[in-house]
Amino acid sequence: MKQKKKLRIGTIGYGFMGWAHADSFDRAGKFFDADYEPVFQTVCARNKENAQDFADRWGYKTVETDWRSVVNSPDVDLIDICVPNNLHADIAIAAAEAGKMVMTEKPLAMTVAEGEKMVAAVKKAGVPNMVWYNYRRIPAVTLAKQVIDSGKLGRIFHLRAQFLQDWTISAAVPQGGTGTWRLDIAAAGSGVTGDLLAHCIDTAMWWNGPITRVCARTETFIKEREHAEHGKVEPVGIDDACVFLCDFENGSLGNFESTRYARGHKAKYFIEINGEHASIAWDLHDLHRLSYFDHKDDSLVRGWRSIHVTDGDQPYMSHWWRPGLSVGYETSFAHQAADFLASLSGNKPVGPTFEDGLQTQKVCEAIIASGKDRSWKDTGASKML
Amino acid sequence: MKQKKKLRIGTIGYGFMGWAHADSFDRAGKFFDADYEPVFQTVCARNKENAQDFADRWGYKTVETDWRSVVNSPDVDLIDICVPNNLHADIAIAAAEAGKMVMTEKPLAMTVAEGEKMVAAVKKAGVPNMVWYNYRRIPAVTLAKQVIDSGKLGRIFHLRAQFLQDWTISAAVPQGGTGTWRLDIAAAGSGVTGDLLAHCIDTAMWWNGPITRVCARTETFIKEREHAEHGKVEPVGIDDACVFLCDFENGSLGNFESTRYARGHKAKYFIEINGEHASIAWDLHDLHRLSYFDHKDDSLVRGWRSIHVTDGDQPYMSHWWRPGLSVGYETSFAHQAADFLASLSGNKPVGPTFEDGLQTQKVCEAIIASGKDRSWKDTGASKML
Amino acid sequence: MKQKKKLRIGTIGYGFMGWAHADSFDRAGKFFDADYEPVFQTVCARNKENAQDFADRWGYKTVETDWRSVVNSPDVDLIDICVPNNLHADIAIAAAEAGKMVMTEKPLAMTVAEGEKMVAAVKKAGVPNMVWYNYRRIPAVTLAKQVIDSGKLGRIFHLRAQFLQDWTISAAVPQGGTGTWRLDIAAAGSGVTGDLLAHCIDTAMWWNGPITRVCARTETFIKEREHAEHGKVEPVGIDDACVFLCDFENGSLGNFESTRYARGHKAKYFIEINGEHASIAWDLHDLHRLSYFDHKDDSLVRGWRSIHVTDGDQPYMSHWWRPGLSVGYETSFAHQAADFLASLSGNKPVGPTFEDGLQTQKVCEAIIASGKDRSWKDTGASKML
Amino acid sequence: MKQKKKLRIGTIGYGFMGWAHADSFDRAGKFFDADYEPVFQTVCARNKENAQDFADRWGYKTVETDWRSVVNSPDVDLIDICVPNNLHADIAIAAAEAGKMVMTEKPLAMTVAEGEKMVAAVKKAGVPNMVWYNYRRIPAVTLAKQVIDSGKLGRIFHLRAQFLQDWTISAAVPQGGTGTWRLDIAAAGSGVTGDLLAHCIDTAMWWNGPITRVCARTETFIKEREHAEHGKVEPVGIDDACVFLCDFENGSLGNFESTRYARGHKAKYFIEINGEHASIAWDLHDLHRLSYFDHKDDSLVRGWRSIHVTDGDQPYMSHWWRPGLSVGYETSFAHQAADFLASLSGNKPVGPTFEDGLQTQKVCEAIIASGKDRSWKDTGASKML
Repeated sequence: MKQKKKLRIGTIGYGFMGWAHADSFDRAGKFFDADYEPVFQTVCARNKENAQDFADRWGYKTVETDWRSVVNSPDVDLIDICVPNNLHADIAIAAAEAGKMVMTEKPLAMTVAEGEKMVAAVKKAGVPNMVWYNYRRIPAVTLAKQVIDSGKLGRIFHLRAQFLQDWTISAAVPQGGTGTWRLDIAAAGSGVTGDLLAHCIDTAMWWNGPITRVCARTETFIKEREHAEHGKVEPVGIDDACVFLCDFENGSLGNFESTRYARGHKAKYFIEINGEHASIAWDLHDLHRLSYFDHKDDSLVRGWRSIHVTDGDQPYMSHWWRPGLSVGYETSFAHQAADFLASLSGNKPVGPTFEDGLQTQKVCEAIIASGKDRSWKDTGASKML
Repeated sequence: MKQKKKLRIGTIGYGFMGWAHADSFDRAGKFFDADYEPVFQTVCARNKENAQDFADRWGYKTVETDWRSVVNSPDVDLIDICVPNNLHADIAIAAAEAGKMVMTEKPLAMTVAEGEKMVAAVKKAGVPNMVWYNYRRIPAVTLAKQVIDSGKLGRIFHLRAQFLQDWTISAAVPQGGTGTWRLDIAAAGSGVTGDLLAHCIDTAMWWNGPITRVCARTETFIKEREHAEHGKVEPVGIDDACVFLCDFENGSLGNFESTRYARGHKAKYFIEINGEHASIAWDLHDLHRLSYFDHKDDSLVRGWRSIHVTDGDQPYMSHWWRPGLSVGYETSFAHQAADFLASLSGNKPVGPTFEDGLQTQKVCEAIIASGKDRSWKDTGASKML
Repeated sequence: MKQKKKLRIGTIGYGFMGWAHADSFDRAGKFFDADYEPVFQTVCARNKENAQDFADRWGYKTVETDWRSVVNSPDVDLIDICVPNNLHADIAIAAAEAGKMVMTEKPLAMTVAEGEKMVAAVKKAGVPNMVWYNYRRIPAVTLAKQVIDSGKLGRIFHLRAQFLQDWTISAAVPQGGTGTWRLDIAAAGSGVTGDLLAHCIDTAMWWNGPITRVCARTETFIKEREHAEHGKVEPVGIDDACVFLCDFENGSLGNFESTRYARGHKAKYFIEINGEHASIAWDLHDLHRLSYFDHKDDSLVRGWRSIHVTDGDQPYMSHWWRPGLSVGYETSFAHQAADFLASLSGNKPVGPTFEDGLQTQKVCEAIIASGKDRSWKDTGASKML
Repeated sequence: MKQKKKLRIGTIGYGFMGWAHADSFDRAGKFFDADYEPVFQTVCARNKENAQDFADRWGYKTVETDWRSVVNSPDVDLIDICVPNNLHADIAIAAAEAGKMVMTEKPLAMTVAEGEKMVAAVKKAGVPNMVWYNYRRIPAVTLAKQVIDSGKLGRIFHLRAQFLQDWTISAAVPQGGTGTWRLDIAAAGSGVTGDLLAHCIDTAMWWNGPITRVCARTETFIKEREHAEHGKVEPVGIDDACVFLCDFENGSLGNFESTRYARGHKAKYFIEINGEHASIAWDLHDLHRLSYFDHKDDSLVRGWRSIHVTDGDQPYMSHWWRPGLSVGYETSFAHQAADFLASLSGNKPVGPTFEDGLQTQKVCEAIIASGKDRSWKDTGASKML
């Protein structure tokens, strides 16, 4: 194996996303061929014992409890932010100011204002940056992007997306705390909009260009929940569900829906795009398949194709197993890590950058505003990488 | 076979729906056991030769070219309206005034105002009446209604529906004329809203109660089309596509979408309802199946069930073949005809009555209005049979 | 409608298949355009009261209790046999001798010897004849035949078929009698082999040419059952399940399986053919769909296509509804009736004729023999229409 | 993280399976909690440069080119065999004799005679041993085993399995050499029987007990192929396709099929079991789903369930992501590695041991023999762990 440069990672947070990111850098290093080799340098968390267990598993050299010391450490090249949304901006800005590369879990920020500061910070510092909108790099989703960019679909008429879950239906689910901070408006900033729809919006705008106007209906079905840490029953501030209509800059119509109250759906992220000549659909529940309809097929035998995206000529798959053998959810992170590592050689940014993440933030903020006064809102979003 | 009373039918129109209705009364008489036997008395159409061919096939005794003579004929008990929407009101009101039972293709009318007059007419005359929202009586859809009414779903959170087609994508499709009157605002009153969404709305309100507020986005993708009869290129007045959000009276959220520009979808009518304990989904493309998820199942082996609705204990199916052998689209009409015939004995109305059709009309009218000024509208719709 | 010649039908038996055949001739007359108009002349059954009810529904002019009087009636042109297998030969031969056209439910006969006599009889009489292997005329199955005949598949390697049911798992299901004669060796001749596999074999040989050799494993899981009529518990003589391997004349391998003990399968008739360049699969549970894989598709977006066989350019479908609106199981019979009626004009036989039915009979008989001594058997089957 | 004992691995071979095994031990160490920590000690291959690249990626400490030096190294605790089938026996026996734990890729051996020697060697040495029949540990397949063992299925009637591929249809695919040794009888021992059916047989006997008798039809469609290394065109000795019938000890019937000539199937490993009360089916192409039918469900809403096996209470899944987020093919190896590591603490063997692998070998050998003389063969297989 060729000699590689080392990329020393400082990971902030060791939760669900900490695991996903560690696994992704680990496997990007093994299964892909970047000039840079990821090195697990430091992991940071408030609970040192837990952080140590995490560090032992993945081989981090040191453990910290103060993120500022990691951000300022000379032994770290890249800050990877895996903590709740309300901490993204402070850490990212400090990291950029310290001259570190920075990656953050999505959504970029709590607000557009915060996001703009983050973008300004990484631009000023000139550091590589990325937001972990990982679903772009599910091989089927990447393949869809290639097909769309090839022009095969022709004029686009519709894009619809759903992200449906059912894990908060019980009133006994608390808000706040380690596993349930996503229900806490103070930590999450919003509910399904920032958590789930943000994914749909990132993919949608990557595929189909800017969303210019939105009209949303948001709802909070369970009005009060106990807080996981201090036990008080408090009003729920997040959106439990959000449905929105939108216009894309290219004239197509969008229809998006997300909820955590759709019984039977664990993580049904479905997205479909309809063009003049062809259509594409994808569902996270069967993430290794892409549905494709090509009107140019002979009419007698025309039908939706179920493409099993596991062949070596399909995106990323030459790095994995054999045709027919599917990879898991987590490889989307590995692909993002691999693309990030590869981008460092050419100094050519790859999306979604902070700038891209800001576009999604703008749409999310317009959605929440629209949900409040029930009117259409301009988003101000522009084109993504 | 027991002696039956005769129900003499006067059919107005012999197009697609004329065939569907004739087939339905024919098979309702053979496969079901009502006290009334349908008799094909008269068919009426402007083109006498075509009407005669239709009459010969189905055994109609006479052919007429003026609907008023049929409406006023002493030999006819039931007027069945199978002509474009702009003729529904006049014929139905005249039929009611002549004391005839009356059934009409959907949507009920061009406007709420028209619909109200129709309802008033049938009420005043005290005649049995019905609108052919046939999809209610697809066995899987009827089964869904039974499950919902049983309370198994618990509190309802969401209902979403789509009716997607792709047959008008080509700019060469004309508007107006025999096969394409559905694109002509003068004949159809609206586009996908009255043609397709009306079906979704009827089923949705039957399942889940009144839709109280809507917010719609309508679009006409192809702005001008040639007229099929006089050949002039004219502005297109219908909605090619419509997406709307809505509130149900019971607090659940609705998300509806329809278009004739969704490449790959011939007639994808999909509807799903999510409750606290269970969810149900159905798709016209596989009309014999019902998807059902029951959270009370043992968690290890819990999953969406694909119910092949072809067993004798499932709605209507004891009248047909054997388990595993599915029936076609057209049986939904036969079931409606059979239920109508059965209702005549007990004098107990069955839905969707004109009154029910009016509720759907109210929602459609609010949608079109909302699409125009992009604001939320109250519908005024009330509960259906 | 053009003036038509009358084809007077004498139906023997009014059970499940009596209904299916009556419906098929009725709708063939209405939805298709043959020179011949089917006329329901006489229905014959032992139970006159039931036969009368059947006659009333369908419009038969007379009711008989002795099939010989129908066979010899000058008012009947076509004898349609809908009774258990042990009566096919006698009735068919007598019908042919009386110069009547004759159609029989499948399988053709109880034995090859019987079948040969039937073939000889219709040949000698020169009368049109057909066996109701209806599944050939499910539109998707007919479309598959067209694609195979076009040569698109290239060299054929494999054909596999299953017909799985679960309705006899309970030991309480009796043998013999009206609804359960299919479990009675005396009435049925065999179990799943003649009842279910015969369908698979007919389609398989129609698609892929003669089956030359078979090796079978038959099993009777429940050894004794009560007889539905006289109540005695008697040994079960039929095959409850049958799996067989076979060679086709063209060098491809066959794998067939049938059972009435496959819990969860109502009537899963699945058939798949794999060629060098393309493959096709079909499943009765979703009879309106055809699965098709074409290796010549661009490898990036290659996948199994799910063809919704409901378009006007697909077999038989121009006679029915609209794209996306599926027809039922029973239309396969209507298509067969329509093809039979059409064939009378040109005097060009259409399959499956008695001669074709005999080929399937040969395979079935070889299967049963192989199941007994567990060795490979030659079938002697030859090419079908 | 608790202090762990080290398990030093000597890997023989670095091909497809070398990668899969390395990844599996790596992630077993990180995502699971065994007392033993896997250490990548030595990798061995003929091509030292390639082996070094592999070693660099995974962190192996040394590289060897002679497997005997690895087997005899005091620095190695476990020999993991990832080379073609014809080398399994020699290496495994030497490893056992050297007192090493030993794991081998499947199938266990080239012949039953070889396999018996291997079993004798590990028994004599008393060393932990395992065969990499990885599919048992796909979470859905493990869940199926639990459901079957719970007795929910009742009496078993049928088991059917297929393993269909299409990668050798082209006559231009060579035999022998690095990527195509599976077509070379000298290296592989057999074709689809040992490569693909062996997987099906392992799972089938694990689920449903011993296969006692088989009757097979084997075929070689392409009779000659060029050798990848020396370029000579030589007869093909392997079975391109194999279909076999079988009896299970419990009285149920088996139907198995495998081929590399089923166009459109990349790696369709499908297996289904039908019991009196319930049925289960699984397909590798959607490996994260299990199909389950329970006849005890209310008949109105009874249907096949599609279980998305991604919840924390389902096998192995508490170690991975979140409900709805599926894992890949390779996790089946990680689960096997984790179970092996865990078994070392309790000294309780877990299957499939060499002894279990031998049972599968017996069935495979009987299949090949049956394919040659076309008669039924006893297998002599006994119960597995």
